Amino acid sequence: MPRNFKIILAYDGHDFAGWQVQPDRVTIQGALVSAIEQLTGERTLPQGSGRTDAGVHALAQVASVEIASPIPVANLRKALNDLLPESIRILDVQEVPPDFHARKSAIAKTYDYRIYRGEICPPFLARYVCHHPFPLDEAQMAAAASAAIGEHDFTSFAAVDPEVRKEGLEINNVRTIYSSAWQHRGEEFVYTVRGSGFLHHMVRNLVGTFLMIGKGNLTVHDFRRILDARDRSAAAATAPASGLFLVSVEYEGEKPL
Amino acid sequence: MPRNFKIILAYDGHDFAGWQVQPDRVTIQGALVSAIEQLTGERTLPQGSGRTDAGVHALAQVASVEIASPIPVANLRKALNDLLPESIRILDVQEVPPDFHARKSAIAKTYDYRIYRGEICPPFLARYVCHHPFPLDEAQMAAAASAAIGEHDFTSFAAVDPEVRKEGLEINNVRTIYSSAWQHRGEEFVYTVRGSGFLHHMVRNLVGTFLMIGKGNLTVHDFRRILDARDRSAAAATAPASGLFLVSVEYEGEKPL
Repeated sequence: MPRNFKIILAYDGHDFAGWQVQPDRVTIQGALVSAIEQLTGERTLPQGSGRTDAGVHALAQVASVEIASPIPVANLRKALNDLLPESIRILDVQEVPPDFHARKSAIAKTYDYRIYRGEICPPFLARYVCHHPFPLDEAQMAAAASAAIGEHDFTSFAAVDPEVRKEGLEINNVRTIYSSAWQHRGEEFVYTVRGSGFLHHMVRNLVGTFLMIGKGNLTVHDFRRILDARDRSAAAATAPASGLFLVSVEYEGEKPL
Repeated sequence: MPRNFKIILAYDGHDFAGWQVQPDRVTIQGALVSAIEQLTGERTLPQGSGRTDAGVHALAQVASVEIASPIPVANLRKALNDLLPESIRILDVQEVPPDFHARKSAIAKTYDYRIYRGEICPPFLARYVCHHPFPLDEAQMAAAASAAIGEHDFTSFAAVDPEVRKEGLEINNVRTIYSSAWQHRGEEFVYTVRGSGFLHHMVRNLVGTFLMIGKGNLTVHDFRRILDARDRSAAAATAPASGLFLVSVEYEGEKPL
């Protein structure tokens, strides 16, 4: 009887072609598959709470995976970290009930998007921020961020998801945003958003539109209009991947961070 | 009449084969040569305060270079940053007297060596620290660091420098260390050393020996014996490049940081 495990992991997404396994590309999921296979001899497919794109980072991504090998749970973290590259670190491994699924069981997720505002971006931060040293109307950006809170159809901020289309699944782009705000952290202006779930590119598309508002090319009224339009072509360009961090994933019965 | 410039620059050394220009290798000096040539059409060779090895970082390296092109000094920084990769940032450019030379005019340098002590090294720090989660006798390491202060012949901590040997220069391995100490910074144990100058690999060789003392394989008495031996084979292995940062270079008439 295989046991089901919840794996919490951090990664620097810069050198990966995103989360999802792809032939001939280095991905986070692919590195996990390979480490688990080296350790147990089992070919698994750990399910992430969601797919992160190429260049997107995670402070605490969650994956679930069934493993039959009788390796003690206390040893799994260290054994897998010894096999994984330094750019992926497993922070915790827990045995969980068989019905736990990292994506389907998730009830909320939090993302940060980091914009470096200083004139010269330190070379040690370049992989982890979007550099924007030009003027921004931060009050208008904050107002637009507030307008995203609540239950909305986010089609205007969703990339068309090739997987969903391929599988002929019913498309439901309604999501609930619990909090959505900008704050200053040193030289950075950081957007933090917590919601029931996020569509493909949704955070980066929201940030791209907030940046247009900050530059004065769009207004908060335009933001509401774009949201109501339910049309991807209405919103601004996708913000760069480098600034985006998956901060946490929440599950029923857990205390939110 | 060419003008002489002092360039202060930061870099993430991880993806570079060190400071010095090398055929078919990506180096910091090579990137500067190329940016200056693109901007001015002039083939220069900026002189660094010293060569940093592959993987070694700089918060404020200093280079000097003569440029004939009449480009205003105020524009040089931005124009060069636009041409350089994000992993190299020019922090400041000043016009200086013709006799200023980044290496020959330097009177002191400061380096940091960062050891990450936590059990799991965050993927975002892996390029910038040496990870050592095992026990260390920090008091003994501090005592040994103090023993390095003063004027000493550091032959035991010097790699044989192929450039010096090639040029048949007289070898003088006497240097003066003004301060040498370990401190805690969050989860890191950081060695900071300020001295009149440093031999090739000297900081990493000192740290390698301090680590042996921290592990209990050598004593502070052994450190003094190794220093007195003036023999490279007496000291411990070179610590990894990733933890080393050139923090600052000082010149006559400047206020030290």
